[in-house]
Amino acid sequence: MAVTSPNLLKPSYPVAGSQASAEPAQFSEALSAWAEAIGAAYVDVASPILDRYGRTTGPRAARPLAVLHPDSTAQVQQIVKIAGRFGIGIHPISRGKNWGYGDAAPTCANQVLVDLGRMNRIVELNSKLGYVVLEPGVTQKQLYDYLQEHAPDWWMDVTGAGLETSIIGNTLDRGFGHTRYGDHSLTTCGLEVVLGDGRLLKTGLGHYENARANRAYRHGVGPNLEGLFTQSNFGIVTQMGIYLMPTPEAFSAFFIAAPRESDLPELIDELAKLRMQGLLQSAIHIANDLRAISGRMRYPWDRAGQTTPLPADLRRALRNECAVGAWNVCGAISGTKSTVAGTQRALQRALPNHRIIFLNDRKIQVAERMTRLLRKLGLCKTLASRLEIVKPVYGLLKGIPSNEPLRGASWRVRDAEPQHPTDPLDCNAGLMWIAPILPADGPIAAAAVSMMEPIYQKHGFDTLLTLTFVTERALCCVSNISFDRRRPDEVTRAQECYRELTERLMKSGSILYRSSPQTMKTLAIGSSGFWDVSASIKQALDPQGILSRGRYEPAA
Amino acid sequence: MAVTSPNLLKPSYPVAGSQASAEPAQFSEALSAWAEAIGAAYVDVASPILDRYGRTTGPRAARPLAVLHPDSTAQVQQIVKIAGRFGIGIHPISRGKNWGYGDAAPTCANQVLVDLGRMNRIVELNSKLGYVVLEPGVTQKQLYDYLQEHAPDWWMDVTGAGLETSIIGNTLDRGFGHTRYGDHSLTTCGLEVVLGDGRLLKTGLGHYENARANRAYRHGVGPNLEGLFTQSNFGIVTQMGIYLMPTPEAFSAFFIAAPRESDLPELIDELAKLRMQGLLQSAIHIANDLRAISGRMRYPWDRAGQTTPLPADLRRALRNECAVGAWNVCGAISGTKSTVAGTQRALQRALPNHRIIFLNDRKIQVAERMTRLLRKLGLCKTLASRLEIVKPVYGLLKGIPSNEPLRGASWRVRDAEPQHPTDPLDCNAGLMWIAPILPADGPIAAAAVSMMEPIYQKHGFDTLLTLTFVTERALCCVSNISFDRRRPDEVTRAQECYRELTERLMKSGSILYRSSPQTMKTLAIGSSGFWDVSASIKQALDPQGILSRGRYEPAA
Repeated sequence: MAVTSPNLLKPSYPVAGSQASAEPAQFSEALSAWAEAIGAAYVDVASPILDRYGRTTGPRAARPLAVLHPDSTAQVQQIVKIAGRFGIGIHPISRGKNWGYGDAAPTCANQVLVDLGRMNRIVELNSKLGYVVLEPGVTQKQLYDYLQEHAPDWWMDVTGAGLETSIIGNTLDRGFGHTRYGDHSLTTCGLEVVLGDGRLLKTGLGHYENARANRAYRHGVGPNLEGLFTQSNFGIVTQMGIYLMPTPEAFSAFFIAAPRESDLPELIDELAKLRMQGLLQSAIHIANDLRAISGRMRYPWDRAGQTTPLPADLRRALRNECAVGAWNVCGAISGTKSTVAGTQRALQRALPNHRIIFLNDRKIQVAERMTRLLRKLGLCKTLASRLEIVKPVYGLLKGIPSNEPLRGASWRVRDAEPQHPTDPLDCNAGLMWIAPILPADGPIAAAAVSMMEPIYQKHGFDTLLTLTFVTERALCCVSNISFDRRRPDEVTRAQECYRELTERLMKSGSILYRSSPQTMKTLAIGSSGFWDVSASIKQALDPQGILSRGRYEPAA
Repeated sequence: MAVTSPNLLKPSYPVAGSQASAEPAQFSEALSAWAEAIGAAYVDVASPILDRYGRTTGPRAARPLAVLHPDSTAQVQQIVKIAGRFGIGIHPISRGKNWGYGDAAPTCANQVLVDLGRMNRIVELNSKLGYVVLEPGVTQKQLYDYLQEHAPDWWMDVTGAGLETSIIGNTLDRGFGHTRYGDHSLTTCGLEVVLGDGRLLKTGLGHYENARANRAYRHGVGPNLEGLFTQSNFGIVTQMGIYLMPTPEAFSAFFIAAPRESDLPELIDELAKLRMQGLLQSAIHIANDLRAISGRMRYPWDRAGQTTPLPADLRRALRNECAVGAWNVCGAISGTKSTVAGTQRALQRALPNHRIIFLNDRKIQVAERMTRLLRKLGLCKTLASRLEIVKPVYGLLKGIPSNEPLRGASWRVRDAEPQHPTDPLDCNAGLMWIAPILPADGPIAAAAVSMMEPIYQKHGFDTLLTLTFVTERALCCVSNISFDRRRPDEVTRAQECYRELTERLMKSGSILYRSSPQTMKTLAIGSSGFWDVSASIKQALDPQGILSRGRYEPAA
């Protein structure tokens, strides 16, 4: 893989041998047709705008040929039909905040972006059955604010990806959050999809006029087609229902800072038992020390003598200073007062050698008051520090979105840290996620982690890593290469590290849970049959191959 | 719809205008090819055997042209390829116990059955992560016995469809059971499927060699194709992983006999709240009086003066005699001793006007001892009666399969009831399920039930009905027309009742959750777009239309 300077890919119209491209003359015609369909003001071809959409936190990205901004499903259908007529590839984005996984850019070159950001309506709220129907432009913050105002008795699930990310965009990439509804692909209830051939599909029971159980029942009747539109390029999702949780009568977050690296297998095995028993129902995150530390500070270049990766003794020192464990667990318990208390006891019984901190709103308030007092007296920095780490996470466990977790993305950036967390694209953050999916089996998961860490170090990177119980039996191991995009040497090393890690993982059976443009081809490693069938379905729903060329098409 | 005497459809080879038929000469050639592929002993064409496979609990069924009995996935692939070569339709069955939904028979005429019963291996057990991998022939009893012997710490979920039904067969028709894992389509983890074009597909992560999280993580990477193979005719599932539950530390069943018909909306709304809070996690069944009574006795022809439907006063009398309520709720709570106790209190608090009976193993033992004693003294028939109803249900709530619920299928059969429940096909039971899916919204669900009951009565039938919380927000309303198949007048009335009910339900937006051969076309009512897309996928995966013609193909 050659390193390409970012944002320097010229707008090149037709490329020999590429599918779905168009000659320049035809491209102009297409632009006119799109302008007629959605309004000229909503067709962007200005170079600075295209540059902006082509930015990436990765080593390079495909700059779009143009950007279209439809306002309705009907306009999306028209866009797709025009794309089909001229054979031009298009790629939809919701908010374009797919940081570290390709950002707003299309997977391959020669595609037109369809930015669905204007479609940001909250179409429906059912406050008896607990669901909302959203358009792709709706952000985490927008839904949160809406619920605070219109349905304060309901909680949403949120990811750590900040306030301005799209809920639909995250869900379609099979993202996950922090609560009982953390596995987002299980909380969707009815998609509206424009297929690659322009047809409109409603999944679940949505295609029946006035179906009473529409949204209430996800499976529909006949084949369940909903799963087809996660991690694929078969259609453009223009609406999605998602479930909400009723505010629980009682709630408790729990935190564990396990001191030893060797604590990991036991933590996983014991938490898995409680998950499978249905006692713990939330997503549970187990962050390593560096992940926790990266939420508080940037790489200590000076203390590390400008070297990388982080020296072992400095790592230990930071662990103590930031009051984090080798492994840092957080999760949530909800129910009635007595079931929460019973579950807390079960958790403590399962991990008798660990100190588990249980927090609820009342305790947080008390701790804050105490901290203020102690700080005045110059005492107990540990409590203050712990509280600082814990507070945004505590919010996430209750479905309150926050930009705080974005800080981690710029771990290796050499500038002074801004006061407020910023868009990683605005601060030169280099970010490449490597997220294998592992069984919730302590020794197996720990072995995979042990395999990864030396590869990160060999290339001069630090292993920032979280293991998340996304289901009762599976851990998503979310690690990332963090680098400074302005340093060509780091970019090169990041790519080498990325290639080595992803290939080693795939070959050893630790399959990536999600792919960035760089790893789409990697997904074919060790696989047989599946991608061929997937290509047949693509052919059936998007016969001209108009949509998101290359996305989850490893064989293409 | 004309009434056809059952089992009298002659084996007619080619039918003008039918897809995938073959001339007699070619049919013989196909039979030879199949015999060569799987062994002549495993190709049945004998008339009595075909008659047997063509039996139905419905008004009529399509008699198969032949029956093939493969023993392996490779043989299934060969069968499919031969079917494709000769253009002959084939229809797979697992155990053929799809009573009341078409039984073992294919949806349309001129198809060859592929009976997967010989493929009855339990391929894998993972007693750390809690799953098994099954072939289609594995029955509920077989898995239960296997777990008792090899993994007694794990529970399975079971349906009320008896000991000898296939787990895969039920799951592919989107069946459901009684426990925390009652929604079977959420507990599958990896299918192996032979597509209509002979390709082999493994869903989830199963297509990767040695994927560590195979089975542990259901979604896989890329589009999730698993949902495609429930309620469809896209492939023949030859293996399926399913999740097991760890035996809970504490367990309590709960039962409510609500006295008034008008209790229904409150029951639904309050139970829905507890389900959505994650406090109640099991499937919850709410049976009406007649459903509960039909599990204990057949229609009281003499007391009803040989008339139907059941006179209102007799219905009330039976309700008292059998000690059942107008609505009879059962569900399960599992956890630790203290979380179970806390959940019991939450349930009682939510339904303060209802007496809730909580049962566990210890209480059942005590009650049995007391009953034996009281019976000797001639006292307390109510307790004995209640216990008799409750015991098999209690088992189902713990994942113990039972044939007892099969009794209800022969409610209207005029013979004396046999001591042991029998296969409905062996006792002239007429059975047609009508199962709309409703939101877990009390007034809406109650209104749908109120619409159904008079239609049942108008045609002389009794409304046997259960509302089941299959998910946190959806009720499957499982009702059935029960009739005596030997009475042509009843068969005619059953068909009329069926047609009126299904059409009324579909037109009013109460969509059928599952279809029998008779209602496949009905599924198109009020729908737009979906079935057309489904047909495109069919075309992609089974281009010759070989598999299960007509099954979930309302537009065909």
